[in-house]
Amino acid sequence: MISEGTIIENQIRGKIKELEERYGIELSTTQKILLSIREPITIILDVLYGEVNLFMLGQHVEEANADIAKLLDLNEGEKVDYREVIVHKHGRPLVYALSYVPISRCSEKVINDLCKEKLTTGNIIEKYNVETLRRINNISIEEPTPQLQELFKTDENMLTREYVMVQHGKIKIWTKEAYPLSYFRE
Amino acid sequence: MISEGTIIENQIRGKIKELEERYGIELSTTQKILLSIREPITIILDVLYGEVNLFMLGQHVEEANADIAKLLDLNEGEKVDYREVIVHKHGRPLVYALSYVPISRCSEKVINDLCKEKLTTGNIIEKYNVETLRRINNISIEEPTPQLQELFKTDENMLTREYVMVQHGKIKIWTKEAYPLSYFRE
Repeated sequence: MISEGTIIENQIRGKIKELEERYGIELSTTQKILLSIREPITIILDVLYGEVNLFMLGQHVEEANADIAKLLDLNEGEKVDYREVIVHKHGRPLVYALSYVPISRCSEKVINDLCKEKLTTGNIIEKYNVETLRRINNISIEEPTPQLQELFKTDENMLTREYVMVQHGKIKIWTKEAYPLSYFRE
Repeated sequence: MISEGTIIENQIRGKIKELEERYGIELSTTQKILLSIREPITIILDVLYGEVNLFMLGQHVEEANADIAKLLDLNEGEKVDYREVIVHKHGRPLVYALSYVPISRCSEKVINDLCKEKLTTGNIIEKYNVETLRRINNISIEEPTPQLQELFKTDENMLTREYVMVQHGKIKIWTKEAYPLSYFRE
């Protein structure tokens, strides 16, 4: 009754292995999972740590420069919502996240939530039952920026994940998350 | 600079806690994550275990009975693709999954893949870049059916997750996964 199976392909597995070899480290089960899921990391943090909270570090609308335009497949000068948040548990920072949301691809209700509320971009997408395709564009280990050093009070390397939510074939949300390499190792 | 945050809501956390209390157990980090993600479990199994494979236990088209029609929000008698698979590593079963896919909601290409190939329903959705909303309908601990006892060679309780992928507001794939409670505890 049981027939021969097909290999289930997954490029993320290869990327994780490459990072482990290049840096001579072994990532934990939780870290591997956090790098592999194609949805907001807050879903998992909430389940693992209980109620987690969000701090808004900054939010504004800006015109896309050449780099951001390329990232989002937009024209330069188009308006983009820029959001920086920290997910934390009792004030202990867990994950930093930067998101870009092209304003022209959002309804007025979504834009209001982006500006006024402190929901994650992922929460907002879910609130309005938006159907999306999710894709991980990159995972990496990077040196911390001065801002990340300050936020996490460490100079260790950061594990990062860049992912996008796509609607009607266009990127609706681009997100990059970062946290110290020593986090989520238990 | 840091302002007060909003609580990130997550109903799954409550359901997991309820299961733990009712059965007097503590689920592992990996189990909690596998119950919480709104995507095919194979993505995570592949990352954790390396190449995992798929065995097709059964696949056929049938007419929806009252129960399945209700589950999928279909009319009774409409055609549904029924698939049962086991995800395994070197022949060791990891997860059993049953899926229902309403034929009228699929393109001919998808139906061909459902019938002929041994990709998971999740892999097929991704292959055609289908934009979806994903929702977990239930998580539970259940007594094993005779089939699951035979497949996993155990009579212990099963951890299960029911989730749906929704396109254009309609359920495109309904899936229920099950694995013994002692799995994924490391």
